[in-house]
Amino acid sequence: MAKKEEGKAVRTGELPEGSVRALKGIVSSGEKLLKEIDKNENPFINIPVRGLSNVIYEKGNQRLVLGEKVAKRYMFHTAHSRKFMQTLMVAAFCKQLLEENVHTHLRDLYYAIKHTLPNTKENTVEEQVESDAAIVDLEVALDVIRENLHLAANPKGRVVGNVIVKDTGDTIDWSKLGSGGWAIPSIVEQLEFKDIEAEYVLVAEKDAVFMRLHEDRFWQKSKCVLLTTGGQAARGTRRLIQRLSEEQKLPVYALTDSDPYGWYIYSTMKYGSMALAHVSDRLGCPKMKFLGLSMSDIERYDLRRVTIKAKDVDLKRGQEMKAYEWFKSKEWQGEINKFLEKQYKAEIQALSSKDLRFISNEYLPDKIKNQDFLP
Amino acid sequence: MAKKEEGKAVRTGELPEGSVRALKGIVSSGEKLLKEIDKNENPFINIPVRGLSNVIYEKGNQRLVLGEKVAKRYMFHTAHSRKFMQTLMVAAFCKQLLEENVHTHLRDLYYAIKHTLPNTKENTVEEQVESDAAIVDLEVALDVIRENLHLAANPKGRVVGNVIVKDTGDTIDWSKLGSGGWAIPSIVEQLEFKDIEAEYVLVAEKDAVFMRLHEDRFWQKSKCVLLTTGGQAARGTRRLIQRLSEEQKLPVYALTDSDPYGWYIYSTMKYGSMALAHVSDRLGCPKMKFLGLSMSDIERYDLRRVTIKAKDVDLKRGQEMKAYEWFKSKEWQGEINKFLEKQYKAEIQALSSKDLRFISNEYLPDKIKNQDFLP
Repeated sequence: MAKKEEGKAVRTGELPEGSVRALKGIVSSGEKLLKEIDKNENPFINIPVRGLSNVIYEKGNQRLVLGEKVAKRYMFHTAHSRKFMQTLMVAAFCKQLLEENVHTHLRDLYYAIKHTLPNTKENTVEEQVESDAAIVDLEVALDVIRENLHLAANPKGRVVGNVIVKDTGDTIDWSKLGSGGWAIPSIVEQLEFKDIEAEYVLVAEKDAVFMRLHEDRFWQKSKCVLLTTGGQAARGTRRLIQRLSEEQKLPVYALTDSDPYGWYIYSTMKYGSMALAHVSDRLGCPKMKFLGLSMSDIERYDLRRVTIKAKDVDLKRGQEMKAYEWFKSKEWQGEINKFLEKQYKAEIQALSSKDLRFISNEYLPDKIKNQDFLP
Repeated sequence: MAKKEEGKAVRTGELPEGSVRALKGIVSSGEKLLKEIDKNENPFINIPVRGLSNVIYEKGNQRLVLGEKVAKRYMFHTAHSRKFMQTLMVAAFCKQLLEENVHTHLRDLYYAIKHTLPNTKENTVEEQVESDAAIVDLEVALDVIRENLHLAANPKGRVVGNVIVKDTGDTIDWSKLGSGGWAIPSIVEQLEFKDIEAEYVLVAEKDAVFMRLHEDRFWQKSKCVLLTTGGQAARGTRRLIQRLSEEQKLPVYALTDSDPYGWYIYSTMKYGSMALAHVSDRLGCPKMKFLGLSMSDIERYDLRRVTIKAKDVDLKRGQEMKAYEWFKSKEWQGEINKFLEKQYKAEIQALSSKDLRFISNEYLPDKIKNQDFLP
C-alpha cells in the first residue's frame, strides 16, 4: 500500500493542482468508507444538496453558490444503494483517469462504466443522465469541478491576442494564429500563462463580431485579448476567462446582443447559473463588466431603424430577469425597464448598418475610453 | 474609369484567385446591365434554377450538382423587380468587400443593405432570408461560392497534425497548438499549405473523439491530419477537407456514429447536399471514405451490449437513405439493410466500453491497416 502511494505521488507531480486535490479527495473518501466497513457501520457519503432550495446569491462575492444543506447517501438503504454504487463507480473511474493523467468526455465515462451486474439483469447505469448525476454528486462531495476529475464537456470558443501560453508541452503564441485563432480546449487547468501584453479582455458572444474585430486587428491596436464564446459560453471558455481575470488581473468586458438572451449569456459568465451554482467560484467571473450593446447605445448611435420588435417571450424573460437579485443594481433596473418600455431589441451587428468597421473604429474605442459599462 | 480599373487591379493582387474571379464577375455583370440600359432594353440577370427539379446526381463525379435550367430575372417586371434590386444591392456590397479585402457574415450584410427607400415606406429587405436568397442567386449567377464573395458563415471545427500553413501573414504549425488545436476559420481560401507530413486525413464527427485521439498523440504515431467537425461540418471545414484531398492528394477517412445521422454527416461532406447542390464542386470531397463506426464493427468488436435501440425516425431516415442514388453501392445497401434488420445503432464512443484507448491502440490501426472502409 505504502509503495503504491509512493508511485502515485511521483505521477501526480505532473498533474495540475486541482487534479491532485481531486485524486487525494477520492482516496481519502475511499479510506473513510473502508474504515466504516471495518467497523461494521453503514458506509455513507456526504453530498451537499443541489436543489434550488439550497442555492444562494452571495451579494458580497457576487456569486450564486450552494448553501449549507448536506444529505447523507448510505450504502445500505433501499433508496440510496443504486446511486451509492454509481457514485463509487464514477469515483473509481476518475481515479484511474487521474492516475494515468488522461481526460475523457461524460459520454465515454457513461459507456465505460455501463455493464450488467453479474448474475442479474440489472445494469449499473441505464442512461447517461444517471452517470452525469453521479459526476455532479462527486464534484460537490469533493468540492472540485469535473475538469479536476479529468472529465471534459464539448469545447467551443476561440481566442487571439498578445499572449503566450504553455499547454501540454507546446508554447503557443495567440498573436500568430492566422484568421482562425486558438481553439479553446474543454479543459484549461493545465494552461500556463507565459507572457501577456494586454490591458483587458474583450469577450464577444458572436463569431461574426470576433471575425470583424480580428480582421481589423482590433486586439493589436487596442491591446486586448479578443475572445468569442460562440453563443452561450462553454465551461472551458468560462474557466479561461476567469483565470485571465483573477490570475492575470485583467478587466473583462462582455459584448452581446441587446436582449434578455444576451444578458443571460453575460450573467452566466459573471455570476454562474442556478443549475451550476456549485461551481460558480471556479467558473464565474464577478469582475466582468457589460460593455454593450446597451439600450442607450441604440439611442446614442441612432440604431432604432435596425432594432427588432421584442416577442412576448423576450418581454416575459425581461420581467423575470428584472426580479433576479443579481440584476437589482440601479443601472440594470434602468436597462431592463427601458427594454420593457420600448419593446425592442437589437443585435450587436446592428452597428454594421452604419459601416462594417464602425464597431472597431468608433463604437468600442468610445465605450472603452468613457468606461461606459453596466455593472 | 480606366484609372479606377488600374487601381483595382493593383489591389486584387492580394486577393485569392476565387475572389478575383468573383470581383471580375460582378464588374462584367454590371457592365452587361449598363449596356442593356444604354440600348433601352429591359436589363436581366441569368440565374440557374436551384429547385429540386434542377438538382442532379453526377454518378461519374460523385456529386450533387445543378442541372442546366436557367431563369431570367428582369429589372422591369412586377414579379422580379424587388429581387432584382436585392441581387444588385448584394453585388454592390460584395464588390466593396472585395475591393477593400475585408470579410463579413451574412447577418452583417443584411444589416448593411437594409434601409428604407427614399420617399416610400418600402424597405430594401425585411428579413435576412431575403438577403440570403439574393446571395445564393449571386453565387449561382457568377458560378462562385459565397466565400469568394467574402461572406462568412459561423465557423466550427479544430485541427492538429504535422502541417504548416500560412494564413493572413502568420505561419502556423498545427503540431504545436497544445490541447486546443487550430480553430478552423469560416473562410480558408487564403490558406497556403507550406509543409505537410501526413499520410491521410482523419475526420472525426465528435469533439470527444478528437480529444481522445489528440491526447493519445494518434496523429503523431499514425502520421495523419486529425480534424473534428463538431457535428455537421461547417462550410469552412468542408472546404479545408476538400483542399487537403484535392490539392494535397491525401486520402480522407470519416469517423462518425453508426446511424443515419452519422451517414448523413458523411454524405454531406462527400457528395454535398441537395440544398447546396450549386457548391458541391467547391465543398464536396468525393474521394472521402467511411472508416466507421460500421454495423459490422458492432459485431466484430462485440459492442452489441452498448448499442442503442433505433427509433422510428431513425428507421424512416434509413429507408430514405437506402433509396438515394449515392447510397446505391453494394456495400452501403448492405450496411443500411443490416441497420434496418437489427434495428440498433451505436455511437463511436461505444468503443470506450472496452477501454478508453481502444480506439487509438486497436480499432483505428486495424481498420486502416486492412483498409476496411465503406465507399
